[in-house]
Amino acid sequence: VEWLGRELRCLGITVGGRSTVGDDIEAISARLRLARDRAALVLVTGGIGPTVDDRTREGFARALGVGIERDASMQARLEDRFLAAGREWNAVQARQADRPRGCGFIDNPLGTAPGLLWTEADSLIAALPGVPAEMQAMFDATLRPLLAERRRGAVASTVLRVAGRTESSVDAQLQDLYDEPGMQVTLLGSAHGLQVIVVASGGDQARADAACAELVGRMRERLGEDLYGEGDETLAAVVGRLLRERGATLSTAESCTAGLLAAALTDVPGASAWFRGGVVAYADDLKTALAGVDPSTLSATGAVSTAVAGELAAGARRRCGTDFALAVTGIAGPSGATSQKPLGLVCLALASSHGIETWEERFSGDRATVRCRAVTQALDRLRRHLARTVS
Amino acid sequence: VEWLGRELRCLGITVGGRSTVGDDIEAISARLRLARDRAALVLVTGGIGPTVDDRTREGFARALGVGIERDASMQARLEDRFLAAGREWNAVQARQADRPRGCGFIDNPLGTAPGLLWTEADSLIAALPGVPAEMQAMFDATLRPLLAERRRGAVASTVLRVAGRTESSVDAQLQDLYDEPGMQVTLLGSAHGLQVIVVASGGDQARADAACAELVGRMRERLGEDLYGEGDETLAAVVGRLLRERGATLSTAESCTAGLLAAALTDVPGASAWFRGGVVAYADDLKTALAGVDPSTLSATGAVSTAVAGELAAGARRRCGTDFALAVTGIAGPSGATSQKPLGLVCLALASSHGIETWEERFSGDRATVRCRAVTQALDRLRRHLARTVS
Repeated sequence: VEWLGRELRCLGITVGGRSTVGDDIEAISARLRLARDRAALVLVTGGIGPTVDDRTREGFARALGVGIERDASMQARLEDRFLAAGREWNAVQARQADRPRGCGFIDNPLGTAPGLLWTEADSLIAALPGVPAEMQAMFDATLRPLLAERRRGAVASTVLRVAGRTESSVDAQLQDLYDEPGMQVTLLGSAHGLQVIVVASGGDQARADAACAELVGRMRERLGEDLYGEGDETLAAVVGRLLRERGATLSTAESCTAGLLAAALTDVPGASAWFRGGVVAYADDLKTALAGVDPSTLSATGAVSTAVAGELAAGARRRCGTDFALAVTGIAGPSGATSQKPLGLVCLALASSHGIETWEERFSGDRATVRCRAVTQALDRLRRHLARTVS
Repeated sequence: VEWLGRELRCLGITVGGRSTVGDDIEAISARLRLARDRAALVLVTGGIGPTVDDRTREGFARALGVGIERDASMQARLEDRFLAAGREWNAVQARQADRPRGCGFIDNPLGTAPGLLWTEADSLIAALPGVPAEMQAMFDATLRPLLAERRRGAVASTVLRVAGRTESSVDAQLQDLYDEPGMQVTLLGSAHGLQVIVVASGGDQARADAACAELVGRMRERLGEDLYGEGDETLAAVVGRLLRERGATLSTAESCTAGLLAAALTDVPGASAWFRGGVVAYADDLKTALAGVDPSTLSATGAVSTAVAGELAAGARRRCGTDFALAVTGIAGPSGATSQKPLGLVCLALASSHGIETWEERFSGDRATVRCRAVTQALDRLRRHLARTVS
């Protein structure tokens, strides 16, 4: 839903309101009627699956004042897909072929439940699945082009992605650029990094494009190296792109993040071109067995130290035969802290043909946040390293 | 927000509505006034951070008809915390010490922005951070006891967690139990599994407890081994508990999930008692180098096969010196499929002192969904194996 809000904003659509209703037909229909009176576009997510508490179809029908009918060709298509996937087809599943009379279906390439689309001269009402991947794919394939076609007035937008900075420091740095006429700037922060959404509207398309590009250019200059990408490109995807451009490979050795870094890297489709693998050395003796960390380093400095991080990175690089290796060891909490080594202390290392670079960070937040920030930090250090060296 | 909805439901609080407003003071205040007229509890999340687009404080003040004042003792406390953490303290950060006159603060143990609490005889208005971990910790520490204290009428609830079943099959199995008077049953599904929320209300507390226990008992009987836990316990936490009870250890060897399985296991605090580590063997030759897979098996069956999964599990178990090992290799997409090996094909293995068990699954969905389902499947198989063997 956060994704949807951002995408609509980028299309120049003002989200007038958002509400959630329970699985109650009358409540869904009342809210739909209200929304339809006020907005040219009404999007509903969720409630279009097969079970009895999926009541969006009935809510739609009641709001539109039509009956529900079962679509024979959709039913045949869904049944074929179920049988092809070796899944059982039954009366419960068949409900997904129901639709309010006169309503169109939106094809669902990733799942079973089709969406619903009601088209009027100057308004659209659509229902998409609650599953994010399905919702996004269906929005992109069907609604985005439809909305672009129906749009009045020009809109241009860019999403800038920033790493290694707090929301308040970016806010302070860019604040005086927020009040340009016709422009709207929004900051969205998370443990994965920060997004700056720039939207220009009004005038013709060339003018909106130019205004957006001009403001983005000024922000780009100020943000410098902290700006890592645009649009949907994740930090891991940028690292992958830079590695691929250089024909270089990467491996990982993880203790406290225990696979999260490798998982973030391989979240990028095609990662096998530049990511080879790594080790998860959670127990101390496996830091030695799997990554060749010297037991005397472990006993001298403890498992959370820049020395151990450095040996983990060197070991992963050697054993996996890669150009680069990243290592992470730290205290994610809730326990494990000592007076010298506080909760949230994370030691990291980057090994390359230039040698081994180690550093430490102190993150606040709970276990999941510390692990997530450690992954972001590791990726960002490699990104900066790659960006500085000519490809 | 999904979490909050579930928790409120479990406290017997009917969520009458949920809406989202932009960062606009007048819009926030209008929505707050409306909600306050209709509900005894109004919860706001987000918009209480330090930046200029954090406008919940101002919206609160306008809705309550009071001014904003800076709290000197909160300012001093925040400044101390910033300096102790080695972070810069500035005028932007200081905004977090502002509050509507007469409004209380809610302490934030995990972050900087304190929450706001406005208490009246028969209603509460509270603002919590948008960051999920902070929001949950503050709800648990402050609002949960306050709401329990103010509750009229008895409520009892249980959340059942189910693995290895589709939402529609559980729905079909339990449907005839939904209409018990005074009971409310809700199914919540995701790629991580399914939750069944049972809430009993009305009568005195003993009666509500008994009604809830009785219905849960019947569901428990029907769900059998598919029921893996209650409340907030994740599948990984259950696996960890079963391993710890048996004094047993676990390792992993991952290809397509590339660390996600290890990361899910180590998401459980205290995992080091039973999880030792593993390998991420993304490139084929690392399946041999890191986990001892026979190159001739790889060339005979390809990397995605039950034979390779079995050798990965055996290799991880041997090299990590554990009682159990789980292995995953598959085609998560979007590319890599062949006519024999379709997208979503995942081969898994479980190695133990009883030998090696291998199996294959075919998951639908995008890359992230396939990887997530593979992790859930691997964990669930080990859980069932452990549950069947006496501790």
